[in-house]
Amino acid sequence: MQPYELSIATAAEAIRARELSPLELVDSVLNRLEQVEPQLQAYVSVGADAARRAARDAERDVAAGRLRGPLHGVPMGLKDLIDVAGAPTTASSRVRTGHRAETDSTVAARLAAAGAVLLGKTHTHEFAYGLTTPQTHNAWDRGRVAGGSSGGSAVAVAAGAATFALGTDTGGSIRVPSALNGVVGLKPTYGLVPRHGVTSLSWSLDHVGPITRTVEDAALVLSSLVGHDPRDPASLTAPRPQYRPNGTTDLTGLRIGVPHNYYFDHVQPEVEAAVRLATAELEGLGAQLVEVEIPMTRYVQATQWGLMVPEATAYHERTLRAVPELYRDDVRILLEAGELMPAGDYLRAQRSRTLMRQAWARLLEDVDVIAAPTVPATAVKAHEETITWPDGTVEAVSDAYVRLSAPANITGMPSLSLPVGHDTAGLPIGMQLLGRPLGERELLRVGHAYEQTRPARPLATAQTTA
Amino acid sequence: MQPYELSIATAAEAIRARELSPLELVDSVLNRLEQVEPQLQAYVSVGADAARRAARDAERDVAAGRLRGPLHGVPMGLKDLIDVAGAPTTASSRVRTGHRAETDSTVAARLAAAGAVLLGKTHTHEFAYGLTTPQTHNAWDRGRVAGGSSGGSAVAVAAGAATFALGTDTGGSIRVPSALNGVVGLKPTYGLVPRHGVTSLSWSLDHVGPITRTVEDAALVLSSLVGHDPRDPASLTAPRPQYRPNGTTDLTGLRIGVPHNYYFDHVQPEVEAAVRLATAELEGLGAQLVEVEIPMTRYVQATQWGLMVPEATAYHERTLRAVPELYRDDVRILLEAGELMPAGDYLRAQRSRTLMRQAWARLLEDVDVIAAPTVPATAVKAHEETITWPDGTVEAVSDAYVRLSAPANITGMPSLSLPVGHDTAGLPIGMQLLGRPLGERELLRVGHAYEQTRPARPLATAQTTA
Repeated sequence: MQPYELSIATAAEAIRARELSPLELVDSVLNRLEQVEPQLQAYVSVGADAARRAARDAERDVAAGRLRGPLHGVPMGLKDLIDVAGAPTTASSRVRTGHRAETDSTVAARLAAAGAVLLGKTHTHEFAYGLTTPQTHNAWDRGRVAGGSSGGSAVAVAAGAATFALGTDTGGSIRVPSALNGVVGLKPTYGLVPRHGVTSLSWSLDHVGPITRTVEDAALVLSSLVGHDPRDPASLTAPRPQYRPNGTTDLTGLRIGVPHNYYFDHVQPEVEAAVRLATAELEGLGAQLVEVEIPMTRYVQATQWGLMVPEATAYHERTLRAVPELYRDDVRILLEAGELMPAGDYLRAQRSRTLMRQAWARLLEDVDVIAAPTVPATAVKAHEETITWPDGTVEAVSDAYVRLSAPANITGMPSLSLPVGHDTAGLPIGMQLLGRPLGERELLRVGHAYEQTRPARPLATAQTTA
Repeated sequence: MQPYELSIATAAEAIRARELSPLELVDSVLNRLEQVEPQLQAYVSVGADAARRAARDAERDVAAGRLRGPLHGVPMGLKDLIDVAGAPTTASSRVRTGHRAETDSTVAARLAAAGAVLLGKTHTHEFAYGLTTPQTHNAWDRGRVAGGSSGGSAVAVAAGAATFALGTDTGGSIRVPSALNGVVGLKPTYGLVPRHGVTSLSWSLDHVGPITRTVEDAALVLSSLVGHDPRDPASLTAPRPQYRPNGTTDLTGLRIGVPHNYYFDHVQPEVEAAVRLATAELEGLGAQLVEVEIPMTRYVQATQWGLMVPEATAYHERTLRAVPELYRDDVRILLEAGELMPAGDYLRAQRSRTLMRQAWARLLEDVDVIAAPTVPATAVKAHEETITWPDGTVEAVSDAYVRLSAPANITGMPSLSLPVGHDTAGLPIGMQLLGRPLGERELLRVGHAYEQTRPARPLATAQTTA
């Protein structure tokens, strides 16, 4: 096994035991990156020299007995919406030409303090406003979409071109690409991870969170990200539990809700089968499966878009007027549409959100966790714009990919996506575990228990399709 | 002294000592009400028989040793936006003809549980959307406005037609009529008092709070109102301190901010003089006066209206379409204006609010409390629509009355208005004390200390002006 294949947990243990040096690890991941990047285009920019310098510093610290924790010397990618002092935050957009961040975002500063080594900035769908990340190729099949908007981060982690990465999630943008590339993505509770210094798409729906290859790794990264920061007005002052799962797989007493509506409607049969198999595995670990009814499903799409569209336009107001031609068409059209929206429509979406939040809170009194597909379909071919369901319904790819992930953005509850198998074309399938606000610990415990029942997964190897 | 003149604190002590019976108290207040109501028109409806029945029940409970606390047997008025089971909530509007509340609002239920006796429902500016309450006359001069929107509540308390009352405050609607009628009004921290069952004007700005004749009484009522209620989505789960002041007047160590901008601009000289005299009194009690600069003042009006107008329209959406002719013109025009507002303008107001909240929080790191006029002018004559300032500036009465109170609604910080004298026409002047979120205890302590330095105030006696 090469160092670039290691999980954070294993690499950290090897570094701690001085069986692996940070420089070896970073070199291995950088070499892998150089090998796969031409096929995948996960990165906007890579700073190999700076990464090697940071790795050498980390190595000196290890030698001096100054180990900062499990991220010490671990190489990462940051979605290029996340400010790193002195570097441009391109948002994968021509609008940001010449940009340069003055200071670190809160999350970049916290990861640096934890000893993580930045490899580079990863591609996003332009300004996070889309679900495919067209610049980047799926890690399992480069003829297919990476998913988005954190496509670069998910592909880099899936391919071994980063040991972990950060993404952002406004309607599913951490979980969708994680599911489509067979990695783990966690959208934390709204407000748990500060967004100061992270480019906003829609501030009442935006979240920052980890993309990793294991659930345990997601817990390790999350532990370094949480903590109040008053510079994000939505930042919570919450207790800091021990997120890292303790390794037990006994789920006795846990009630897992399995939706009988919405989450299995218009879902590919292989996706449904894999998720149901995974819930059966959880039942085998002692959990009780409870059929649940998802509330207010007909309002999900209108609420998500009703909140997102005007907030996104408000953020881009000045550049949209000054340099509209620098946006890609899909994003520019959405931003312009937001200018036409009346305040009443936004307020209807706000009120609907309040009702949805209350209804989901009642649902999560009856069960501890809800298990459901992350996305209804595996990665579509690049340039496919719609999915046709067996009953003849035609759905835009972006609508399909956002449909099952948006409820967690609207309500703010945490959602953990983890791989639960592959379809017959070899494409990864994701399951999400939804929980109560600030219930990350429970989600990570359940996800980790599931993970331990499965054989180790090989890294993705992108293949070209005709 | 007649029972109707007593404060809650004094009446409660007399009831506890069995020197006063609840029925005597309620009878006295009802008689006073019958005497002054024809001149003042503070009440939408009075339930004298029901009040006497409740007073007799309260009396039996006292006799049986079941004293519920300081509100036991104390007669109150509730602004007619506040649901009481079985009664209409008219909102002083023809739109509500035939309305009947199914259940008690949270505050009505809590006050009933505390033993308070409902006399009746008090007039509001229609749906709380205005600052004069035209149906009602000022308690000190019936040719002048009551102030609004909780005009009926403030006038009833000022005239002895209720021992206390509740109001609501979206841009100043508790504090403005309290100041104009010489009583105490507390707008608590946003979310501290649940609004379930209270008709909304603008949910992100709406507050419920007490109107009383003393600061100590405001503390007693507040103590019965606070506590989380999940049926109000904004309801806080906050600690419940002892709000009742302990009676000391030593303010040593307290830093009181006195604004050098905004709060004394376009303010009547007699109002300014009374407020400055009051702050000097506080200094005499040991407080340190600190000159402060109020932040972002040029955004107050746009932010207040930018938030309120579309939220109010959203609430009235259906009736505005169905029965626009049932609204008074001033309210209907404001509601219709809200239909034309783009989402972007509302979002600009939201973002401005976030910045204002942060700026005020920084300001309140340097001082403990800010002292300022509640309103820039005493009660104007009924039907006067503008105020002309000495520099020639003409300001709408509603703009003038909302100008100094709105910052506490926008930011959510608590504000306590208390009487600090009268102008040469005999009209009351109010000072507000602004504090940190959840800083009610401090405001009440300071207000109570000031109050103890003053002679007892006689009740208002409305006089007719030509």
